[in-house]
Amino acid sequence: MIERLCIIGVGLIGGSLARALRDAGACQEVVGAGRSVGNLQIAVDLGVIDRYETDLGQAVSGADMVVVCVPLGAMEGVFNAIKGQLSGQVVLTDVGSAKGNVIEAAQRAFGSVPDFFVPGHPIAGTEQSGVEASFPGLYNNRRVILTPLPGTSALATGRVRDMWEAAGAQVVSMNPVHHDAVLAATSHLPHLLAYSLVDTLARLDDNDEVFEYAAGGFRDFTRIASSDPVMWRDICLANRDAILLMVEHYIDDLQVLREAIRNHDGQQLLDVFTAAKSARDRFIDKSSG
Amino acid sequence: MIERLCIIGVGLIGGSLARALRDAGACQEVVGAGRSVGNLQIAVDLGVIDRYETDLGQAVSGADMVVVCVPLGAMEGVFNAIKGQLSGQVVLTDVGSAKGNVIEAAQRAFGSVPDFFVPGHPIAGTEQSGVEASFPGLYNNRRVILTPLPGTSALATGRVRDMWEAAGAQVVSMNPVHHDAVLAATSHLPHLLAYSLVDTLARLDDNDEVFEYAAGGFRDFTRIASSDPVMWRDICLANRDAILLMVEHYIDDLQVLREAIRNHDGQQLLDVFTAAKSARDRFIDKSSG
Repeated sequence: MIERLCIIGVGLIGGSLARALRDAGACQEVVGAGRSVGNLQIAVDLGVIDRYETDLGQAVSGADMVVVCVPLGAMEGVFNAIKGQLSGQVVLTDVGSAKGNVIEAAQRAFGSVPDFFVPGHPIAGTEQSGVEASFPGLYNNRRVILTPLPGTSALATGRVRDMWEAAGAQVVSMNPVHHDAVLAATSHLPHLLAYSLVDTLARLDDNDEVFEYAAGGFRDFTRIASSDPVMWRDICLANRDAILLMVEHYIDDLQVLREAIRNHDGQQLLDVFTAAKSARDRFIDKSSG
Repeated sequence: MIERLCIIGVGLIGGSLARALRDAGACQEVVGAGRSVGNLQIAVDLGVIDRYETDLGQAVSGADMVVVCVPLGAMEGVFNAIKGQLSGQVVLTDVGSAKGNVIEAAQRAFGSVPDFFVPGHPIAGTEQSGVEASFPGLYNNRRVILTPLPGTSALATGRVRDMWEAAGAQVVSMNPVHHDAVLAATSHLPHLLAYSLVDTLARLDDNDEVFEYAAGGFRDFTRIASSDPVMWRDICLANRDAILLMVEHYIDDLQVLREAIRNHDGQQLLDVFTAAKSARDRFIDKSSG
């Protein structure tokens, strides 16, 4: 049981966590914090949080669980604002989509990574953002990856694990470097490709007509290009090295396909498309099972 | 009213057209044709077609509307097999995703493009294929692009238009070259990118784990990579020039994003992501309106 949960950054991710924990009866009080009073008031009106503070030091005071749900670029500022204000029994975690970068930010802000800080990442979300889009079922049967360090308190890790399980998630642990490589492949690269495609098409001369003839496949393919640009700018900067590696890899492979088209090499195209379809169908079978 | 409709290639596209026209009472008899007796028998059992022929000459004999629904690479063979067997009042159309290539195939097979041939392309489909996946509502409010040539009979074009409208579609006409450029951008390039991404990830060392941590965004983004590989090989070969142009364009733009990440250029990333989100949100507003 969490007595006082502090959510810093009450949007889709933080708001849905608060809703899920309230529904599960897993926390007594939820304090929201953030920069926009308007947004925090909406969160109160929606029943997502009990009250809010705009001063981060005030917000974390007395909280036994602090979850930082701000864009990656804002993490270090938050850590600096709360250090020295945390209670003795606090557990601190975050939801950032890249972990190496957050760990470095914690190290810089606190001098060394605190043993009560458990880096985390829920693999959940939609292309929506904002507390209005939050809902308690967001984490149902979704993965949450924790990336504790050798020095992280096992007690703290256990409490973060319990929190996410109470919210309906399946929790796994992973090395932060490995997390960042896996997420670069499955999430960060696809977002980059989708943004890049829509931008390319939007800059064509006849872009209005182009979009007019786009069908359902295009709608699905580009859904993630409606995600929050600030969040994804921060992810690209924070997970730079792993993303660059994957982008290089992807451009190389795409150039092979381009050469196959140029050379009328139907067999090569068929081989790649067949392998991809087979991998994708296997993935869907697994993930829906 | 179509008296005898002949569908050559009874899969998702041809089967759904037959179902829609039967439901609308817009045709009296549907004859299916294709290479697989097993598939054609399923189509009879499902009530999609009345009867079938495996000899294409027999199949088109006496039909007043012939719709060719085979992969682009099989079009010319079909045209060769049916020429000389068509009735005097026939209208011939196709559903190929690239039009220039089909028109060339018709020219080679018939000596010149027949005035009763109306090249067409319904902008509809799912990642499923096969007659089992067909359903009468597939074309409801979807676009069908016809690309008649200057020499195409206006009467024939009118009858193909009527057919698609009876199936629920909105029919527009377009120059075939322009069609091929627009579809390269909105459909062919996205499919290539999705196939390429899944193939890239499937060939990573830890590919099982990679797919395990893929979330909903990945599932949507890669849905089109579950499409029929033969169909898409044929599209890449058939619309080669327009696709190559778009792939070049895309790789150039992606390299700009890669450089922005490499150079920690957050402003450039934010600009591109914001423009893409805005274009995509506009497109969705329009297409759902």
